[in-house]
Amino acid sequence: MATLFERAAIVGVGLIGGSLALAARAAGLIGEVVGVGRSEENLAVARRRGIADRTTTDLAQVGRVDLVVLAVPVASVGPTGRALAPVLDPATVVSDVASVKASIVAALEPLLPRFVGAHPIAGTERSGAAAAEIDLFRGSRCVVTPTPRTDRAALEKVAALWRGVGATVEEMDPRRHDSSLAWTSHVVHALAYTLARAIGERDAGLFELAGPSLRDVTRVAASSPELWREILTANADAVSAALREYAGELNELRAAIEERDGGAVLELLRAGRAARLRLEGKKP
Amino acid sequence: MATLFERAAIVGVGLIGGSLALAARAAGLIGEVVGVGRSEENLAVARRRGIADRTTTDLAQVGRVDLVVLAVPVASVGPTGRALAPVLDPATVVSDVASVKASIVAALEPLLPRFVGAHPIAGTERSGAAAAEIDLFRGSRCVVTPTPRTDRAALEKVAALWRGVGATVEEMDPRRHDSSLAWTSHVVHALAYTLARAIGERDAGLFELAGPSLRDVTRVAASSPELWREILTANADAVSAALREYAGELNELRAAIEERDGGAVLELLRAGRAARLRLEGKKP
Repeated sequence: MATLFERAAIVGVGLIGGSLALAARAAGLIGEVVGVGRSEENLAVARRRGIADRTTTDLAQVGRVDLVVLAVPVASVGPTGRALAPVLDPATVVSDVASVKASIVAALEPLLPRFVGAHPIAGTERSGAAAAEIDLFRGSRCVVTPTPRTDRAALEKVAALWRGVGATVEEMDPRRHDSSLAWTSHVVHALAYTLARAIGERDAGLFELAGPSLRDVTRVAASSPELWREILTANADAVSAALREYAGELNELRAAIEERDGGAVLELLRAGRAARLRLEGKKP
Repeated sequence: MATLFERAAIVGVGLIGGSLALAARAAGLIGEVVGVGRSEENLAVARRRGIADRTTTDLAQVGRVDLVVLAVPVASVGPTGRALAPVLDPATVVSDVASVKASIVAALEPLLPRFVGAHPIAGTERSGAAAAEIDLFRGSRCVVTPTPRTDRAALEKVAALWRGVGATVEEMDPRRHDSSLAWTSHVVHALAYTLARAIGERDAGLFELAGPSLRDVTRVAASSPELWREILTANADAVSAALREYAGELNELRAAIEERDGGAVLELLRAGRAARLRLEGKKP
């Protein structure tokens, strides 16, 4: 593929930033990569794995680049973008990978004229440059969240980058993204963390009885609590509204079980199964 | 391994019964197998796959066997056991595989002198003889639920059968089994079905945004609603109590998110992650 960006800075060379750099370089979409991070140890891993040609812990040392990807945790995207704005050429395309978009887009658009909000929906419960995988985005979806003031040329280049590493790109309003992701990801994590916690508090011996269902459902509770604290609070309104609604629907099933109303239980489970099969049909 | 049972009847040649027959025959633990079921089509699959030597749709045609495994859905175990009692030699060892134990053990112990309650904790979201897998129980756990009136020799033979197909066998009081499984399996399924239903009701387009977390957490919602209706209502008291407690813990996290109390959110997520890592450490 043709090179989209001659020189890019990946700020945050963790699972997502590192995987993007590996895949985009292998596909020839990005030439040179400067990796920016706080931990020398993680930056050394990034150099060793070919994620970055050179690395720095100092944002001001990024130099001339035509793309900056802010691949830092949600709560750091705004502050990092603000710190970069004065030192960047205004022509630089800037994007991010955060799983919450409205607040970040609103904060950075006025400061970075070619900012494009993006959220690749991919990941594992691991983190750091050592966890980066060249195929992480293959078959995944990436939401880009333009607004009326978004530079269309910058949007196209960012979309082409994600397509080039194997993702299907979808445009969505930032607020719509956040209320959708509250359901498809943020509530999912809240449920999993809470289930693991509830069982752990009751009797650790219960884990001896874990079957595949408990393993599947709690897998994402191994994710970083620090990252998820940020995501859940950055999208607090949508997440708490969705959790209230979820609790109402769970209560409906609980009441049907308690009343041994087999017909009502069956109807609720069938609706769940039908929805799950639609999800499976959409599997890339 | 030495043959434990010369001739066994597997009543219900589905995922669990079929997998047990495949594994136990391959290990030489069971000689001849009679498969009993309602669907001629499924019985033909069972014969073709070597799950059973011969099959019948008529319980009375089982003939002389030294083991009967009731591998039918939860709600059918009691009625099937009652129907078999008058035609079986009292020396026959009878066991089951149901995921709810107290009510079944209480119903069948008085009728079948060598009854041993058992619950292999294994499975997939598929069903039927076609879904049977010879390795389904390898590395899994099987709970046996003796009571003071259980025949110890029968218990030992049933335990040896499950160990022989690769499971770790644990003894547990039937009621303790049911309250534990409410947490480790029944609530897990209730959460997954409810999440899939809630998302499906809101906007099927949301599934386009599904990442690996939503897939993992809702995977078990593809399980049979008919089977799960039976399990959830057969263990209604323990399941509804656990669901109430779960809802309370979820509400605690929801309140912390809504108040943007990052410290409280972090503490709750950390407890969940720590519990999940303990679970992973127990993984066979």
